[in-house]
Amino acid sequence: MTTTPADSQALHPDLVRTEVDLVLDDFLSAKDRAAAAQSMPVEASAALRGFLAAGGKRLRPLLCLTGWYVAGGQRRPRPVVQTAAALEMFHACCLIHDDLMDRSDTRRGKPTVHRTLGAQDTHGRTGPAADHLGNSAAVLVGDLALVWSDELLHTAGLSERQLSDVLPLIDAMRSEVMYGQYLDVTATGTPDADVGRALAICRYKTAMYTVERPLHIGAALAGAEPAVLEALSAFAIPVGEAFQLRDDLLGVFGNPATTGKPALDDLRDGKHTVLVCLALLHASRSQIDQLRELLGSPTLTEDQASAARDIIAATGADRMVEEMITERYGLALEQLKSAPMEPAALDALRHLADRSVRRRQ
Amino acid sequence: MTTTPADSQALHPDLVRTEVDLVLDDFLSAKDRAAAAQSMPVEASAALRGFLAAGGKRLRPLLCLTGWYVAGGQRRPRPVVQTAAALEMFHACCLIHDDLMDRSDTRRGKPTVHRTLGAQDTHGRTGPAADHLGNSAAVLVGDLALVWSDELLHTAGLSERQLSDVLPLIDAMRSEVMYGQYLDVTATGTPDADVGRALAICRYKTAMYTVERPLHIGAALAGAEPAVLEALSAFAIPVGEAFQLRDDLLGVFGNPATTGKPALDDLRDGKHTVLVCLALLHASRSQIDQLRELLGSPTLTEDQASAARDIIAATGADRMVEEMITERYGLALEQLKSAPMEPAALDALRHLADRSVRRRQ
Repeated sequence: MTTTPADSQALHPDLVRTEVDLVLDDFLSAKDRAAAAQSMPVEASAALRGFLAAGGKRLRPLLCLTGWYVAGGQRRPRPVVQTAAALEMFHACCLIHDDLMDRSDTRRGKPTVHRTLGAQDTHGRTGPAADHLGNSAAVLVGDLALVWSDELLHTAGLSERQLSDVLPLIDAMRSEVMYGQYLDVTATGTPDADVGRALAICRYKTAMYTVERPLHIGAALAGAEPAVLEALSAFAIPVGEAFQLRDDLLGVFGNPATTGKPALDDLRDGKHTVLVCLALLHASRSQIDQLRELLGSPTLTEDQASAARDIIAATGADRMVEEMITERYGLALEQLKSAPMEPAALDALRHLADRSVRRRQ
Repeated sequence: MTTTPADSQALHPDLVRTEVDLVLDDFLSAKDRAAAAQSMPVEASAALRGFLAAGGKRLRPLLCLTGWYVAGGQRRPRPVVQTAAALEMFHACCLIHDDLMDRSDTRRGKPTVHRTLGAQDTHGRTGPAADHLGNSAAVLVGDLALVWSDELLHTAGLSERQLSDVLPLIDAMRSEVMYGQYLDVTATGTPDADVGRALAICRYKTAMYTVERPLHIGAALAGAEPAVLEALSAFAIPVGEAFQLRDDLLGVFGNPATTGKPALDDLRDGKHTVLVCLALLHASRSQIDQLRELLGSPTLTEDQASAARDIIAATGADRMVEEMITERYGLALEQLKSAPMEPAALDALRHLADRSVRRRQ
């Protein structure tokens, strides 16, 4: 029996999560045992396990498997699932380093890795020394996640052709997300009305990294022709941008109980998002002054955040972002009309676009 | 004409540096051009180029090429040199993240990457905001160096057999150094008399990462038999430990003009080295109290560092470390007597042991 995207079970997020998490858990258990056997610290693999267990949508593995089916892959061979899991392990590196750079206290409703490791010190450090230790340990745990994502890929059991097809895509994906992060980090704290820069961050950090490349990687594993990869790009970029624009809205107007992230963080950090750029572009002089005062203020209170939200809403920026999401969603579906794919594959991609755009977390 | 280690030119450090640096420079120039073409920040590749240009011994590439010749490799094919360069690029990641974790201001006599990027901000940040930006950007530049080291490896033009032989060694090497760093980071600032822990850090961070694995990787590229890899390990571990013990001595008693590192940093950071452990183990009660006061003090002055040096010397710890170096050097040479290698290969390894142990920088 073959499994295709038409079989609604095959790409059910819960099923993908279960299979991917099994691979990650096996891998980290082996790392625990190896560390213990060599008297190495087990805190690193434990921190990573805790981080992965705390949640996350496993979106990149889901997209990788979607790419596999869309390009005609059959069933779910273990090497393909393990490659999907490698993307999640790489993503753990990005998030752990991201939280450190954003100085976030929580992620997925739990303390971030640098906070956990800072609080866990067994040498009696307190205050800034404990914070610094937590930060340093989180740099290393992120680095380990990065090199372990490679190890997952190298040991997945891919054929030589599969490996040589996906390595350039993985290399490209990793440079793209790092560049996107670099743009993001240098812009954060000093947002302005430069929508182009905000869209570049959105494209590199999310559209390419989160959507396009995982689809490409899965499709390449199935031996996709260039025309399929091009059609996937034409669909993925607008869907990915819509996904990030939704994220920006949720980061400011979302319910922390649903998103698992404090609704203050983006405002307090002064994130240079399309939402904020549009607000600054359409705000009155006095609104601009107020926003500049509030955005990026490390001591932002809930009341001040509420004031910032009111101003953003008053400029109409949130509605403009909603329109941009709708426009990109329509464009993505339009692209599918000429895509060289089976109806079942097209259904899977349509479903994906729906989930990316209409989510609440 | 074949080139062997007997040809003294082949492994001359200056020649290796020139060839490796040419590969790194070509690679980073291509990254500069690609970034500019996509309106991506060129600061990241520029920072990495500046870091690599500032110096460094290119020890891991040299050892990788030594491993290649020792296992019977001929000439210097470009894929082998590029693999050696990939090790240097990975090392750049380790050093950039290491400097960040150690809060070092200088490396190789120049400002560290996080200091450079913090001072370079074009958004007018100053004080802690500029420092934080520098730290964040350095996390990302280190991450980029890591993923680019992979890209160098993937695009080196290795045969499928070579690639499948070296990938497990590279994976092992990277986990080992990260674990060693983790042990180091958690021990730094709170040194005690636990010599076993200090030796474990020394073994993982240096003996395995700096010496054993680069030799293995070069030898594996040449298709080395397991017996050759084992003989290389038996030689590499004592040489690597001796190398690190020399480093610890230079870090406290070295001349900053020669080492390029301030002679205060190790003491100020409270590095948990074998030298410091032995000093604490053999110090009197009052010397222990004084050392505890001084080691790891973020405000340590040159006079206080001088006092700490005098106490360490008074305990005889520096002479004990010299003896450990001599013992390991002798053991390494002893191991070579039964190694299944040609005389020219043995000469190259003996020369390497000499350089590792008798250096001043």
